[in-house]
Amino acid sequence: MNIALDAMGGDHAPEAIVAGAVEAARIYGVTVSLVGKPDVVAAELKKYNVRGLDLPIVPATQVIEMDEKPAAAVRAKSDSSMVVGCKLVKSNAAQAFVSAGNTGGALAAGILHVGRIQGISRPALICPFPTLHGVCLILDIGANADVRPEHLQQFAMMGTIYARELLGVEQPTVRILSNGEEAGKGNQLVIDSFKLLEKTPSLRFEGNIESKEIPAGLADVVVTDGFTGNIFVKTAETTARLMSQVMREEIKKSPVALLGALLSRGAMGRVRERMDDSHYGGAVLLGLSSLVVVAHGRSNSLAVRHAIRVAKQAIEHEVPAKIQRGIAALAQPDERAEAAR
Amino acid sequence: MNIALDAMGGDHAPEAIVAGAVEAARIYGVTVSLVGKPDVVAAELKKYNVRGLDLPIVPATQVIEMDEKPAAAVRAKSDSSMVVGCKLVKSNAAQAFVSAGNTGGALAAGILHVGRIQGISRPALICPFPTLHGVCLILDIGANADVRPEHLQQFAMMGTIYARELLGVEQPTVRILSNGEEAGKGNQLVIDSFKLLEKTPSLRFEGNIESKEIPAGLADVVVTDGFTGNIFVKTAETTARLMSQVMREEIKKSPVALLGALLSRGAMGRVRERMDDSHYGGAVLLGLSSLVVVAHGRSNSLAVRHAIRVAKQAIEHEVPAKIQRGIAALAQPDERAEAAR
Repeated sequence: MNIALDAMGGDHAPEAIVAGAVEAARIYGVTVSLVGKPDVVAAELKKYNVRGLDLPIVPATQVIEMDEKPAAAVRAKSDSSMVVGCKLVKSNAAQAFVSAGNTGGALAAGILHVGRIQGISRPALICPFPTLHGVCLILDIGANADVRPEHLQQFAMMGTIYARELLGVEQPTVRILSNGEEAGKGNQLVIDSFKLLEKTPSLRFEGNIESKEIPAGLADVVVTDGFTGNIFVKTAETTARLMSQVMREEIKKSPVALLGALLSRGAMGRVRERMDDSHYGGAVLLGLSSLVVVAHGRSNSLAVRHAIRVAKQAIEHEVPAKIQRGIAALAQPDERAEAAR
Repeated sequence: MNIALDAMGGDHAPEAIVAGAVEAARIYGVTVSLVGKPDVVAAELKKYNVRGLDLPIVPATQVIEMDEKPAAAVRAKSDSSMVVGCKLVKSNAAQAFVSAGNTGGALAAGILHVGRIQGISRPALICPFPTLHGVCLILDIGANADVRPEHLQQFAMMGTIYARELLGVEQPTVRILSNGEEAGKGNQLVIDSFKLLEKTPSLRFEGNIESKEIPAGLADVVVTDGFTGNIFVKTAETTARLMSQVMREEIKKSPVALLGALLSRGAMGRVRERMDDSHYGGAVLLGLSSLVVVAHGRSNSLAVRHAIRVAKQAIEHEVPAKIQRGIAALAQPDERAEAAR
């Protein structure tokens, strides 16, 4: 198995990226192709004992920076690590591409150079969200700001397949993120999508869900447009970080509280582990003919390693092929209906 | 000053509601008219020493339950505490109505029985969100699931006036909640609203804001549609609560951590105080000719007391009259433009 990694993308590139690649190659036994400026990557690799690990360098002379306009940058920089990485996947030299760089760039490069599965109109970003009992998968978290009900239907199908494969849930439950649970609650998109998902037999659709019900584990898959989904995940991240910061501020004000915090450090470490998105390894762009994994821009080596793990698992479970079959099955009833007309 | 309070609405009604009313009357020196079933309210009032406090009971025989369909319930139950409370405000017998009951019901009763300010097409719910330096005001958090750019423009104007009056900021900054800061980021509503707000001279518009930038205090007012705003506030609430619960679970696992938690109890209390929405007293429905304050369904007596405080402050600052003048000024350029055609 060969996973292409954007060695140049991310706030902590190339250091954290190469470090994560070395960890992943060692722990998961995969080949990680480091795509980027050869001298830069080689200099990083020298810091580690990589004997026995398969970490080839794939040259790419350009870098799409974090603040560049995604679509324009992907078109202009054909020798960027993102474009070269996606082309490796397209040509089957690698089975997945992982990047912690410019998210829009990775999406654009993936859609343009890896290509969509036939029948999928909008690839979507899926990521896990922690619940009290495990995780729930939410999509789209940012690939499509404006969507139509038939897109949410495809998201629901892709999320169902992903949850079945990666969470091991036989019949994953699907809900639509809304501002109220009852049918008829939500904006027009939610109301129309509710009606469409309700009559999609291949889905175990259970209605709307409010964000406050997500931690209770009431849904395996939550679908939403990429604008709302993006605000949802960023708000959750932000609140967790705000709360940690407020806690640090208040604890510093009192020596007794500081001692208390020292004693509960172990427990707080486990809290961080359960809440920290580094362990989830980023979001997967579903709907392409091969896998693209988008890690957080601020990814540390742990997050990069987990992003590679996510790619490995999705490859092993043949997620793209299964989505291809799923979308064909989803299209069938409509085709029959059309043929009957 | 007379504030009408829905004594029957909320998860902890009537106990917590009446308790909050007693506290508010004592601390803020206002009259609180308790609207509800006279025998029920009188029985609650008997628990307190209310000598010298002005807590009249206003009879209303019906109750709009938490799970009723708002608009239908408001129409069907003309003697409900919500409808009676709003009518008290309409007739100027009271200057504001406060309810912790069915949010949709309070919105519907307010719009139907208090009435909109002329020129305001969509009243919006505004609430404070904690930042590291104070608060930012966000609207709409749930009154309008689907809106147009001109509605966001009105929300921006109402938010500006409210921030000027209640936060004491001379020229409040306004931003649009989006999934990216740059102009051109966002869904179609955000993109179109950006262009409209940019050319509204009475606003200090500073572009988009991502939810992750809100805690840094980069905006005094954040505008959004009621669907996104509702998901934003509920996700923040939920994450804070999820994090507290995960902390409790992990602390319980170790006696040392438990001791540590005991020592840092005071600091954690202050964290709760800064993060807990009970202290913010609920959301204000702006755009009506008088004030309606919607408190959280799970309000305890503290939250009810603070909701009454919020109403009192908004009355003192003559918020509805100032919004009326603001909307007239906002409409003027358009009228001139129309006259010039």
